[in-house]
Amino acid sequence: MTTTVSRTSTPGGISRLVTNQADFDTRLEALLAWEGVSDAEVKARVDAIIADVRARGDAALIDYSNRLDRLQVTSMAELTLDQARLEQAYQGLPAEQRDALTAAAERIRLYHERQKPESWRYTEADGSVLGQQVAPLDRAGIYVPGGKATYPSSVLMNAIPAHVAGVREIIMVVPTPDGMLNELVLAAAYLAGVDHVFTLGGAQAVAALAYGTETVPRVDKIVGPGNIYVATAKRAVFGQVGIDMIAGPSEILVISDGGTNPDWLAMDLFSQAEHDEDAQAILVSWDAAHLEAVQESIDRLLPTLEREAIVRESLASRGALIQCRDRVEAIALINRIAPEHLELSLSNPDDWLPDIRHAGAIFMGRHTAEALGDYCAGPNHVLPTSGTARFSSPLGVYDFQKRSSIIHCSPEGASELGRVASILARGEALTAHARSAEYRIES
Amino acid sequence: MTTTVSRTSTPGGISRLVTNQADFDTRLEALLAWEGVSDAEVKARVDAIIADVRARGDAALIDYSNRLDRLQVTSMAELTLDQARLEQAYQGLPAEQRDALTAAAERIRLYHERQKPESWRYTEADGSVLGQQVAPLDRAGIYVPGGKATYPSSVLMNAIPAHVAGVREIIMVVPTPDGMLNELVLAAAYLAGVDHVFTLGGAQAVAALAYGTETVPRVDKIVGPGNIYVATAKRAVFGQVGIDMIAGPSEILVISDGGTNPDWLAMDLFSQAEHDEDAQAILVSWDAAHLEAVQESIDRLLPTLEREAIVRESLASRGALIQCRDRVEAIALINRIAPEHLELSLSNPDDWLPDIRHAGAIFMGRHTAEALGDYCAGPNHVLPTSGTARFSSPLGVYDFQKRSSIIHCSPEGASELGRVASILARGEALTAHARSAEYRIES
Repeated sequence: MTTTVSRTSTPGGISRLVTNQADFDTRLEALLAWEGVSDAEVKARVDAIIADVRARGDAALIDYSNRLDRLQVTSMAELTLDQARLEQAYQGLPAEQRDALTAAAERIRLYHERQKPESWRYTEADGSVLGQQVAPLDRAGIYVPGGKATYPSSVLMNAIPAHVAGVREIIMVVPTPDGMLNELVLAAAYLAGVDHVFTLGGAQAVAALAYGTETVPRVDKIVGPGNIYVATAKRAVFGQVGIDMIAGPSEILVISDGGTNPDWLAMDLFSQAEHDEDAQAILVSWDAAHLEAVQESIDRLLPTLEREAIVRESLASRGALIQCRDRVEAIALINRIAPEHLELSLSNPDDWLPDIRHAGAIFMGRHTAEALGDYCAGPNHVLPTSGTARFSSPLGVYDFQKRSSIIHCSPEGASELGRVASILARGEALTAHARSAEYRIES
Repeated sequence: MTTTVSRTSTPGGISRLVTNQADFDTRLEALLAWEGVSDAEVKARVDAIIADVRARGDAALIDYSNRLDRLQVTSMAELTLDQARLEQAYQGLPAEQRDALTAAAERIRLYHERQKPESWRYTEADGSVLGQQVAPLDRAGIYVPGGKATYPSSVLMNAIPAHVAGVREIIMVVPTPDGMLNELVLAAAYLAGVDHVFTLGGAQAVAALAYGTETVPRVDKIVGPGNIYVATAKRAVFGQVGIDMIAGPSEILVISDGGTNPDWLAMDLFSQAEHDEDAQAILVSWDAAHLEAVQESIDRLLPTLEREAIVRESLASRGALIQCRDRVEAIALINRIAPEHLELSLSNPDDWLPDIRHAGAIFMGRHTAEALGDYCAGPNHVLPTSGTARFSSPLGVYDFQKRSSIIHCSPEGASELGRVASILARGEALTAHARSAEYRIES
């Protein structure tokens, strides 16, 4: 699928909006507009690749890797990395990076252990037992993008919840275009408990994980970000395996009460905008002078950024400084936008929490920069984008487990329930259901 | 999408398999094979309907309802049922049905209240707070099929978890082909806490729920079963709103140790097979004489069924009596099939539970007929089909809630984490991330 977006860019700068402007709603809608649209050509190519991998297995994977990632391999062994290779990457890191990665992995693990759902059951007066049994998936597949935008933090965030969930086997795929391998990514895989790595990418990697080949085991769920081919392939195999949400561009909504250093806020907006030109950074405040000060910080700091061009384009096309009337309006904006990242740069963020219905992650207080959550605070950085926080949650341990209902009726319980079930089944004209229940009624 | 299936029917009867047969794996795979295949024509018609509802709103809904459900309405008011109408349906039921429906609703509510996830948080040594806030969806849409296969139990099973979750507004849609309305369905909606009912169906109803019209409010998630147009429409709007799984045909796997009355088991298999010709009923036992006895019960009882023709076709095309060697083989079969419904008709079902990794719902002991779970035991009857219990769960309260991560760093915590984040961000060449974190490092 390709993505289209309505742009309302202010040439050379970030949009300035005031909620009492007559056209505020229209302008905000235009800024937020984002819709993935299916591209028939990409869809057809992806369907063909999936069919080919299902038909030819490993041979197809070798062909596509040579063609699309410009490799020259002749066997799957050359597309497989073993545990020793991962450990070698970890040991080979500079001490400072190794320690930082280890500290991040440890914090992410601790947080996710708190998240683990437990099996439960209860016994009724007649001895019947009801409950739910929680079990991990057998196998999870983690897709990690290759090339330039290769993020070791994403490996930690996707694989650690699976590991904490108790998934028996975690398979990672990462393409190596032109043979390029990122040591930090392999080290992260080692730390996160990845069991096998295949250097595969694109729709062919997704197809291999969904259906299995001679070498790649079939998994039960595929998670992780990817380009348009990966996203389209994930959508195509949805149902055959589980998938996580298809992510849109990353976004942040910052609410400031005027008490945070404007330079800090400018950099928080930049840290979102530097992801790519479609990323969205919005600041809301009721303090007009404060918004002016942040605007001044933006103008002054922008030229000092390594990724200045990307940030400039992102802020101009999708960013905004919004002046609202008060806290009530700010909260309405939060729930309307349902942001992926919400930064409450306030003196009293706890007072706001009960009113916030939709947000992927909430960063509270002036010190909690969103970037801390991207790497090492503990909670997951895989979050619902484009307003999907209305109905979706951060990636978590629960995404790598599933539940089975438990029903164990005592003879008395079955007899009692049988009477009710019989009446309802006959009301639906399902008489074999009724008779099956009636056999268990005690006379 | 249309569905294709490989059939290995034994003319006039249910397949008999033994696990030590040379072709057992092949025959089992063929029996289980089920794949939804996209039908380009259906997809195109659904896409056109969705586009039309987005463009014309209520006017399109009125047109499609008149055309496809053969109505003659001129306003949305004629496609809207109010609370008084639902209560009237409830009060008008025969006492026996009203009491049975009320008892079922009460048990379903009690079970689902146990399932409610809670918000949690913890404080670290440096004063930083981490956690997760659980919130209900604002609005849920429940699709209920109309016409002949209208099941009040499905209304209870889909709407009660939403109500228990605390969803602010539950919207139900149910088509009324030729104006046909099912009073039991309306009564169930009354009991389950449905707020609004629109007598709409098909792709147009899904489009209205996903995007909203002048009259129908946009919802955050759409659940409930439907025909091929409904399933295709749900797939198309996935991402714009949340959806539940796209269900395949219903299935049961019964494991018997030989001690259950063969007539009971035959009727349990029938109760699954009577749903439709594609439903799947499989019985596994290591007791060959017992399998013979069940076969005899099937032959004797089949002619007594109201839905004999459907059951006969279902058993012949997709049913099986499987003789395995022992408990170990039976457990391997369970985990391979990952059945929607698993009936453990055993003297010691509790001993088996720890080994069962994949099943939608587990019915334990000789008295727990699957039909009890369909109506009134308490657990949900919306369950993962076609082996998707490998990665999916029963519909539950958790499907109508979402989580927001909470991160509130103390100044000390932010300083400490800032150092780690800075190193990792620079490792990913995201320097605005690094600088945003570094601002919070205390010198």
